[in-house]
Amino acid sequence: MSKLVVQKYGGTSVGSVERIQEVAKRVIRYRERGDSVVVVLSAMSGETNKLVSLINEINPNGSAREKDVILSTGEQITIGLLSLALEAKGCAARSYTGTQARVMTDNAFSKARISEIDGSKIKEDIAAGKVVVVAGFQGVDCDGNITTLGRGGSDTTAVALAVALEADECQIYTDVDGVYTTDPRMVPEARHIPKLALEEMLEMASQGSKVLQIRAVEFAHKYNMPIRVLSSFDEGDEGKSTLVTREEDIMEEVLVRGIAFNKDEAQLTITGVPDQPGVAYKIVGPISDANIEVDMIVQSIGSDGATDFTFTVHRNDYEQAKNILSETAKKVGAENCSGNDKIAKVSIVGGGMRSHAGVASDMFAALAKENINIHMISTSEIKVSVVVDEKYLELAVRSLHEAFGLDQA
Amino acid sequence: MSKLVVQKYGGTSVGSVERIQEVAKRVIRYRERGDSVVVVLSAMSGETNKLVSLINEINPNGSAREKDVILSTGEQITIGLLSLALEAKGCAARSYTGTQARVMTDNAFSKARISEIDGSKIKEDIAAGKVVVVAGFQGVDCDGNITTLGRGGSDTTAVALAVALEADECQIYTDVDGVYTTDPRMVPEARHIPKLALEEMLEMASQGSKVLQIRAVEFAHKYNMPIRVLSSFDEGDEGKSTLVTREEDIMEEVLVRGIAFNKDEAQLTITGVPDQPGVAYKIVGPISDANIEVDMIVQSIGSDGATDFTFTVHRNDYEQAKNILSETAKKVGAENCSGNDKIAKVSIVGGGMRSHAGVASDMFAALAKENINIHMISTSEIKVSVVVDEKYLELAVRSLHEAFGLDQA
Repeated sequence: MSKLVVQKYGGTSVGSVERIQEVAKRVIRYRERGDSVVVVLSAMSGETNKLVSLINEINPNGSAREKDVILSTGEQITIGLLSLALEAKGCAARSYTGTQARVMTDNAFSKARISEIDGSKIKEDIAAGKVVVVAGFQGVDCDGNITTLGRGGSDTTAVALAVALEADECQIYTDVDGVYTTDPRMVPEARHIPKLALEEMLEMASQGSKVLQIRAVEFAHKYNMPIRVLSSFDEGDEGKSTLVTREEDIMEEVLVRGIAFNKDEAQLTITGVPDQPGVAYKIVGPISDANIEVDMIVQSIGSDGATDFTFTVHRNDYEQAKNILSETAKKVGAENCSGNDKIAKVSIVGGGMRSHAGVASDMFAALAKENINIHMISTSEIKVSVVVDEKYLELAVRSLHEAFGLDQA
Repeated sequence: MSKLVVQKYGGTSVGSVERIQEVAKRVIRYRERGDSVVVVLSAMSGETNKLVSLINEINPNGSAREKDVILSTGEQITIGLLSLALEAKGCAARSYTGTQARVMTDNAFSKARISEIDGSKIKEDIAAGKVVVVAGFQGVDCDGNITTLGRGGSDTTAVALAVALEADECQIYTDVDGVYTTDPRMVPEARHIPKLALEEMLEMASQGSKVLQIRAVEFAHKYNMPIRVLSSFDEGDEGKSTLVTREEDIMEEVLVRGIAFNKDEAQLTITGVPDQPGVAYKIVGPISDANIEVDMIVQSIGSDGATDFTFTVHRNDYEQAKNILSETAKKVGAENCSGNDKIAKVSIVGGGMRSHAGVASDMFAALAKENINIHMISTSEIKVSVVVDEKYLELAVRSLHEAFGLDQA
């Protein structure tokens, strides 16, 4: 049965004329088996950085609107080049910029969000037998301004386009052949995961497995669009891949699907805070107001009407957040505030946790056995995260990988 | 009195970050004296060639539509960069791609023609005190496809935009400070022309004075838009310039304004052609059908019911045109056909010729004095062109420049 497939290729997959030719060959192989193909492209690797340094030379603090006008040219070049490559091989193709593809966004330049895609014109081209090649990462607001979705936004374009066109599958080609139980560079025993639930992928992605952009996964989750992660460096099409799909479509539900980790965080603690209604807002509010994203938040019950607060921020925001917290400490009459930017977060993720108790305590036991001290704990339905000293990160990931049997087929 | 000025900067004028900063400074100087400024930009010099070689590596014979998608990115980068440079100096600016500026064209990709510009949005920005920065060389067809106007098309964008916005003047910044009586590299005595008529500029441009794109001059001529040619390398704004304007606005009408020349042509002759109605079409038709442009055409009256034809084509088309002509010679029963690609065309141009007889014979006399043989002659209202051996080109230009007193103030 013929399918409609949306294929997204990242910067390294279109990084040279040769790589673009390879993409064209793959697209044609899909066409030859009867599928319709819509391609979403990033800029050639290095191109965006080149444009960014031009911008920074002239005016790093200029308006985001003008920066988006410049940055969006990278994908405009690759869509034209791939279309020409397809034509050279006898395959009719037509490129679409974000504006032409009617990828409508809000006007939050540099980090715009897609509100709607009018796929009617693209559908006509598909019906006429053409391969449609769309610029990822970019859209247009209702005033015709060019917007960009921020780094990694091409994944989101691909998923949103797949939803708008009612595609059968959204394929994301990267330089890895899918998702692993953990990072194989850290744990050589890490196994490839052929299939996992969108909810699990969401937790894996947000916890630091950098295979897919988290907004893309959220989008796919919301609209039930299956995503397949593949490597554009595989010669054939029968190589390994990871299908990210609805939980109902996953036959084998496992307790722990994988181990995610994140070294980019820092921890801040404020102790002896008078325990009054609204105190959490008084502490976190000023941090958010400074546009600093807060990840984990833990409040522990204190004694004598006082409470302790611990939260994590991106390590780049550590100094600024610490200064803000010191000010807050004075205002709310807290005892002390401290911080630690030598920490790492380790998470176990798995849809099976919902129906099985004791997974968290198994995790704590495995870490205790290695004498790894836990600073913070945070849990969700299908995930348990802990913060440990950065120096224990590898040991923690390896022992958890083994403890949950992820190294065994 | 405050004016609306459209300023166009070519590739060398925006060829580096430093040059872009210089353009920003100049725009701001105009603003400070109360003028409103709309800027039209080319791509950074070298950028278009880089894109062309990428295209040629992948598919030189691909569709012009996709090539235009790629080539139009060059200007999109410069408009963003100049807007950022203006912002950095505290000047509100807003960039427009061809699509955003509503530069409507036909769909003749790579050589599209502007049909209309809807300047309403740009006018709003001007009224709001913003500098508007428009991408030259590009437009959009009625289906939203990106088109380019062909090389040099940025001049046409600037003039068409000036007309649409009812600007007071269209300034074309290049690497020369205007038009000269002839090329100063060939004749050191060549004098700068402060003012000349659009009709004269049209003849000068089409005859090889490569300062302005001929379509731009035609456009300006049609809509009576004054063009000022200036150098973007002049420090101040009070440097030399050439104003190209309506003939009525030129006070001093001279016999000969300047000497133009062209080394890119080749000459083809077919002799002993039976003189019948339609024979000219039989000879020139097949050449035009091969997309070869014919410049001068001379038919001389022959004897015995036969006639001779001589015409010129671009030197690059010489071999192909010669082959076509040989075929035609057989078909029409002509005696012989021959050619010469070592020729050059020299023209005298001047609005005063209309009311003065004898200019042509003065020209022939000057050439005869130097023993320069004339192969072809062609005349228009304000121009006389001759074809001579290429080796006599410099001598011809210098002696005509002197004979008509162009070296004297």
